[in-house]
Amino acid sequence: MGWAIALHGGAGDIPRSMPSNRLEPRKAALHYCLQIGVEALKAGRSPLDVVELVVCALEDNPNFNAGKGSVLTGKGTVEMEACIMDGNTKSCGAVSGVSTVKNAISLARLVMEKTPHIYLGFEGAEEFAREQGIEVVDSSHFITLENIERLKQAKEANRVQIDFTQPIHQELKDGPKGDQIGTVGCVAVDGEGNLAAATSTGGLVNKMVGRIGDTPIIGAGTYANKLCAVSATGKGEAIIRGTVGREVAALMEYKGLSLNEATSYVVKECTPKFTTGVIAVSASGEVAMSYNTVGMFRACATEDGYTEVGIWAGDE
Amino acid sequence: MGWAIALHGGAGDIPRSMPSNRLEPRKAALHYCLQIGVEALKAGRSPLDVVELVVCALEDNPNFNAGKGSVLTGKGTVEMEACIMDGNTKSCGAVSGVSTVKNAISLARLVMEKTPHIYLGFEGAEEFAREQGIEVVDSSHFITLENIERLKQAKEANRVQIDFTQPIHQELKDGPKGDQIGTVGCVAVDGEGNLAAATSTGGLVNKMVGRIGDTPIIGAGTYANKLCAVSATGKGEAIIRGTVGREVAALMEYKGLSLNEATSYVVKECTPKFTTGVIAVSASGEVAMSYNTVGMFRACATEDGYTEVGIWAGDE
Repeated sequence: MGWAIALHGGAGDIPRSMPSNRLEPRKAALHYCLQIGVEALKAGRSPLDVVELVVCALEDNPNFNAGKGSVLTGKGTVEMEACIMDGNTKSCGAVSGVSTVKNAISLARLVMEKTPHIYLGFEGAEEFAREQGIEVVDSSHFITLENIERLKQAKEANRVQIDFTQPIHQELKDGPKGDQIGTVGCVAVDGEGNLAAATSTGGLVNKMVGRIGDTPIIGAGTYANKLCAVSATGKGEAIIRGTVGREVAALMEYKGLSLNEATSYVVKECTPKFTTGVIAVSASGEVAMSYNTVGMFRACATEDGYTEVGIWAGDE
Repeated sequence: MGWAIALHGGAGDIPRSMPSNRLEPRKAALHYCLQIGVEALKAGRSPLDVVELVVCALEDNPNFNAGKGSVLTGKGTVEMEACIMDGNTKSCGAVSGVSTVKNAISLARLVMEKTPHIYLGFEGAEEFAREQGIEVVDSSHFITLENIERLKQAKEANRVQIDFTQPIHQELKDGPKGDQIGTVGCVAVDGEGNLAAATSTGGLVNKMVGRIGDTPIIGAGTYANKLCAVSATGKGEAIIRGTVGREVAALMEYKGLSLNEATSYVVKECTPKFTTGVIAVSASGEVAMSYNTVGMFRACATEDGYTEVGIWAGDE
């Protein structure tokens, strides 16, 4: 028993040849955001607060596909999604189609706490954001030059594609063989076994306007109950079909698997290869980070002093 | 083994005192829509076609809270949701925030078949509908006098409420003690064990604009795999937290429960009392219809000649 935290910044076909000017800022961000979470847990903040705080930091970093770094729809617009869930109460909140809110994860939490609903989308979510007085920015805030270039290339290649990991031109040259994959997330547990999960994303490069992925779907991209908290990243459609978040918990609950066995089973048996990464913590303070992709930007720490920041297999 | 079909027209606090002028049209619709499904199965139509066909018929009937009879948001608008899923392939399609499409379930199927995505919402879904040339109507088509009155009463009572079962004034008099509950759905299996599920809804009376419920959420309101097909109805937020659709299948897959055991367990253990109804069929042609509400508008038939149309316990 003890606190534990894990976070991710996307799973996918991350090339080991990634140049250091693209790799290092992401590694630094993983360290930095992990530290924010660890300090908050040590200070006695609730896991719900901790996952929101960490995901906000990941959203504010332009190197990940969420918040500031969100990729663009086929029309060049930003439509962000986020979801947060508290394990004890199964209270949860989610948003989709958010275009001006600086931190979509905080809006998701407001949906959870200030409405009779779980999930608001698009104009209704934006209107609710205004009512709540949460920080909004002009949607140009989210439109980075890199993401304009990514959209251009995706359109040239005529594909729906997500990327934030690949050197931009390398990605195009390699062609659409892999799904370059984004999304950020965090899961945390305190010393009393209170669990929470949060996930946030900009979705897919060149996605259709209105497309909803796995991130805001309770039981798919995000899930927490009294056993575990889970955040997934990868090819959203595969994660939805695999009900990945709930699956980890169901395998623990109904088959008696450990957290590590459950996450390994899910990425091996419940979703196709090269589609899915999962981070999870259990009520007893275990951490699991599994993926069936080439790599996953990830970091974790536990109260007993274990820390890991990695991208590929062998980084542990 | 053999074909089987089940459908629902909402679960909730349906009073046994419901006057016959409200009861009889609904019972007649259940018989009529069941017959459509049975004939289609007998004619060799695929379960996917069958569930779409039956849900279209339920949507076109103003006595249910979907399509033509959809209840109104707090702003007096209509925002419909629907979802369809094929058990063999786990292919699925969903829409939310649809305001002009005559049959949202058919739009969900087009999302499944004509896009790289699973789920489109709001303006993007409407735009896709136009591109596909699916039948659209002025959104006034969906705004019935009864639903204008329901919204007025819900606003007077200052509550978010769904109703389509209750005598309108009776509902108000009884106060907000129960959640009057809508949604339509259908599940079907053919003689080869091919499964499909479909669900459609107008959501909650007086819901916030943008509110998304359980219906379009794969694994919550709608789910199908190779073991079973499930459609849920009730209090959407409880069904989302309970991941009801996937739960039925997970209990069969991981605990070895029968279809009937699984649906009974889900309405007893996985969702709070008075919130949830479920219909399901298994690959081997079993049918289950379980609810923890006062009643559920429901109907089913199997190849061996069993037929049931009922509302309350004891109607079997």
